[in-house]
Amino acid sequence: MIFRQLFDRTSSTYTYLLAERSGGEALLIDPVLENTEQYIQLIDELDLKLVMAVDTHIHADHVTALGTLRERTDCVSAMGEKAEAECVSVKFKEGEKLCADNLCLDVLYTPGHTSDSYSFRVADRVFTGDTMLIRGTGRTDFQNGDPAAQYDSLFGKLLTLPEETLVYPAHDYNGMTVSTIGEEKRFSPRLQVADKQAYIDLMNGLVLDDPKLMDVAVPSNRKCGVAAVS
Amino acid sequence: MIFRQLFDRTSSTYTYLLAERSGGEALLIDPVLENTEQYIQLIDELDLKLVMAVDTHIHADHVTALGTLRERTDCVSAMGEKAEAECVSVKFKEGEKLCADNLCLDVLYTPGHTSDSYSFRVADRVFTGDTMLIRGTGRTDFQNGDPAAQYDSLFGKLLTLPEETLVYPAHDYNGMTVSTIGEEKRFSPRLQVADKQAYIDLMNGLVLDDPKLMDVAVPSNRKCGVAAVS
Repeated sequence: MIFRQLFDRTSSTYTYLLAERSGGEALLIDPVLENTEQYIQLIDELDLKLVMAVDTHIHADHVTALGTLRERTDCVSAMGEKAEAECVSVKFKEGEKLCADNLCLDVLYTPGHTSDSYSFRVADRVFTGDTMLIRGTGRTDFQNGDPAAQYDSLFGKLLTLPEETLVYPAHDYNGMTVSTIGEEKRFSPRLQVADKQAYIDLMNGLVLDDPKLMDVAVPSNRKCGVAAVS
Repeated sequence: MIFRQLFDRTSSTYTYLLAERSGGEALLIDPVLENTEQYIQLIDELDLKLVMAVDTHIHADHVTALGTLRERTDCVSAMGEKAEAECVSVKFKEGEKLCADNLCLDVLYTPGHTSDSYSFRVADRVFTGDTMLIRGTGRTDFQNGDPAAQYDSLFGKLLTLPEETLVYPAHDYNGMTVSTIGEEKRFSPRLQVADKQAYIDLMNGLVLDDPKLMDVAVPSNRKCGVAAVS
């Protein structure tokens, strides 16, 4: 597997490039508009063909590159069926697979941070979007966020994966690049709760500023980051 | 192998944590003073014992955590024999091994960025310090930097490693986390030179500001980052 983790400093977003083999097809997870040229150059240098760009959810902190990448490379753009983004070429749902050659991401529906949050599992790793962060979890106070749903996504799905599964989130703000399910289970402060109600109380008790780009990013991302925001 | 890449945003430094197995010994490469608590916590969470902290060279852009980690964890602190840093517990040289349990780094002497620049090779990867960056090379205009020596380190040593070798540098400023020897050989602009003289001319033609922290970091790092700067 060819695997690259890329970091957008402005929004602290991780973008992931995956492919089965040199000369083959590639997938991008959570690409950031401003880094489009970097992705295209790297994909070219690695002798790959981008076939699909996917977002784990509609982001509120950066504008997606999905639309621009589709225009530039003819790749498919994809978000989950719960995403209010009619711009995408494909909508996926729980249980489906997103493939580049024989490298296939298994789609998990993991709502909570937003109602359109998905995770992707492949081989020894899982891409958790904002559902599970390293030693944290995504906020649940906007875009149909729901701490009860997030508890179920975490404890009912992600934390049931093998403990050695590598966790690659959509963001990190502390210089960490990867974790494991076992580590998060034991050391993520937000996951040390007695039950679902305790998690709901914990999340509802957070007082957070809105993301700086939220008013721009969300409507723009519903149009795959390309159309003028109405 | 347990492997973690950690990023210091202020100086864009990558720090690497390596261990053979959970419950065993660990090594840190290029730790940053301000992140000492993060390292100690992560090492504890991963059930590791830090046995050695090493710097690839005396850095000019951040203060090392070598001395503080030694005080806090009783680990060995190590730099190369060419480093003007009498504070370290161990000085290594080309051909020696630095080990945590049976995981051993092979020491390569790769001067050029500074006269005390070393790289470390283990398994499928090489830690290149500032000698080889992703699509770049470390500047050669201070601390006994020498573009001719750097050319020899690059073309005579690092670029002779197998093309699939993963390249983990001490810094990245563009959101890239890893590369390969083959990629750098083909796509690093500075490595597309006809000969040594062309490389020397290229490097000598760069006009760069001094690192912001240079006047503090270099004398401090010669004392492993702990002693008062005289």
